[in-house]
Amino acid sequence: MKRAERIAAITKILCESPGKIHTINEFSEMLDSARSSISEDIDRIQDAFEKLHMGKIKTIPGAAGGIQYIPYIDIKYYEGFVEQLCKIFSQKERIISGNFIYTTDVIYNPQLVDKVAQILAYSFLNVQADYVVTIETKGIPIAFAVARLLKLPLAVIRQENKVTEGPVVSINYVSGSTRNIRTMYLSKRSIKANSNVIIIDDFMKAGGTAKGIVDMMKEFDSRVVGIGVFIATKYPTEKLVSDYVSVLQLNAVDERKGIIDIQSGDWVKNFKKIEDFQLK
Amino acid sequence: MKRAERIAAITKILCESPGKIHTINEFSEMLDSARSSISEDIDRIQDAFEKLHMGKIKTIPGAAGGIQYIPYIDIKYYEGFVEQLCKIFSQKERIISGNFIYTTDVIYNPQLVDKVAQILAYSFLNVQADYVVTIETKGIPIAFAVARLLKLPLAVIRQENKVTEGPVVSINYVSGSTRNIRTMYLSKRSIKANSNVIIIDDFMKAGGTAKGIVDMMKEFDSRVVGIGVFIATKYPTEKLVSDYVSVLQLNAVDERKGIIDIQSGDWVKNFKKIEDFQLK
Repeated sequence: MKRAERIAAITKILCESPGKIHTINEFSEMLDSARSSISEDIDRIQDAFEKLHMGKIKTIPGAAGGIQYIPYIDIKYYEGFVEQLCKIFSQKERIISGNFIYTTDVIYNPQLVDKVAQILAYSFLNVQADYVVTIETKGIPIAFAVARLLKLPLAVIRQENKVTEGPVVSINYVSGSTRNIRTMYLSKRSIKANSNVIIIDDFMKAGGTAKGIVDMMKEFDSRVVGIGVFIATKYPTEKLVSDYVSVLQLNAVDERKGIIDIQSGDWVKNFKKIEDFQLK
Repeated sequence: MKRAERIAAITKILCESPGKIHTINEFSEMLDSARSSISEDIDRIQDAFEKLHMGKIKTIPGAAGGIQYIPYIDIKYYEGFVEQLCKIFSQKERIISGNFIYTTDVIYNPQLVDKVAQILAYSFLNVQADYVVTIETKGIPIAFAVARLLKLPLAVIRQENKVTEGPVVSINYVSGSTRNIRTMYLSKRSIKANSNVIIIDDFMKAGGTAKGIVDMMKEFDSRVVGIGVFIATKYPTEKLVSDYVSVLQLNAVDERKGIIDIQSGDWVKNFKKIEDFQLK
């Protein structure tokens, strides 16, 4: 095989498995080429990616070493995306009677969800999580996309007890905003004891649901190592959980005036901590 | 930029946007190189992909033309994957009292769901769909992943009327297996009139839910152009909808004997129709 062809093949494999460690041997065998040629090929790919800000090809030394592709995280790109989301959510047609806001179309749009999930997943790159946990229904697509990026299984808490879940653990919790007592259910099989979990949800007001999930995790002898939400309301400012990351902050919905006041959340704080992150 | 570097850059961009049409000009400008050089680069990438069965680089002639990367769909690969799924689902620990089977861990595992979604998405590549539609809860990850691959928005039917959905259309339907009358709700904003939709769900027994969704689509002046399910039961053999695609067929669950009898569904029939498919 010619150099040009080898480079096309290696680039394709690296880019389709971000974070995965590949060995020189693997490519050498597949392309029936000398290890030294493969090394040179990789240097060329590295040069190209560096020049064009396309991410990094990282070399990991040692017996378990190899090379891996690390995508480039451009904070400016995500700032622009969040600004675009704010515009989308400021459309006054989105106001629903009772000062609610219609988010369903965005939450089920795979192109937008993928980017929201990137923001949340990158915020938890340095956390050693075993599961992503959410509660049905509207949090599922975002949580699923985050789990996909972090290569973790997802566990979905149910709001009703379903026969197909098998034996479940149930807990009662108080909805922070309405003060209603509700019950959540999670299949006993879904999370192994002694796990670290990240909670992902689409919306947080007082944080009662998130607090409920934190309590539920205790029943699984597991602990919450991160909470990420798509939209958090500004009020109440004191939530029932602390230390969560939000993509958007909803300041106010004024049905009478037809105004939705929404801004970027505090996700940037976690992004700034990313120096040399590592995908699993 | 050197040829090797240009090839790395072009390969990366093509592989990260399967189905998208790129122009030679786009690459020529980005890489500050002559159009003739870019054309030669693309020929090299094409050669490499062809030799290694890595998919196709297709050239589309004409004013709106350009080049696009078409991933290679290997029926054998998916046959092997479905076999692996059958093994997973045959584990007798999965039997839940009442002859149910525990599928939740698979349905929320992004690595497995991605492949299931590929099978279903590739089955509907030649259908001109505008939306993927599912019903909460367990169908959402698969439907979302199918929507992602087909670059379509997802609409999720609710089993309860939620204030955050705004005005909804509701219909009553009869669950085919239990004969219970239930109600499903879909936000009026979620589907535009005169659309083509694909229904995706995780499980089908008698097909009552799918039939309900077909009826719901009529209320939106829209039509169902495809139905895909992850697991369809063998019995009843006469379903309330015809012409659906299944990834797996569940023949029987025998709690007493500890046997789950499951086999590949009929997805292969649609795969065999794929000659030169076209991603949007």
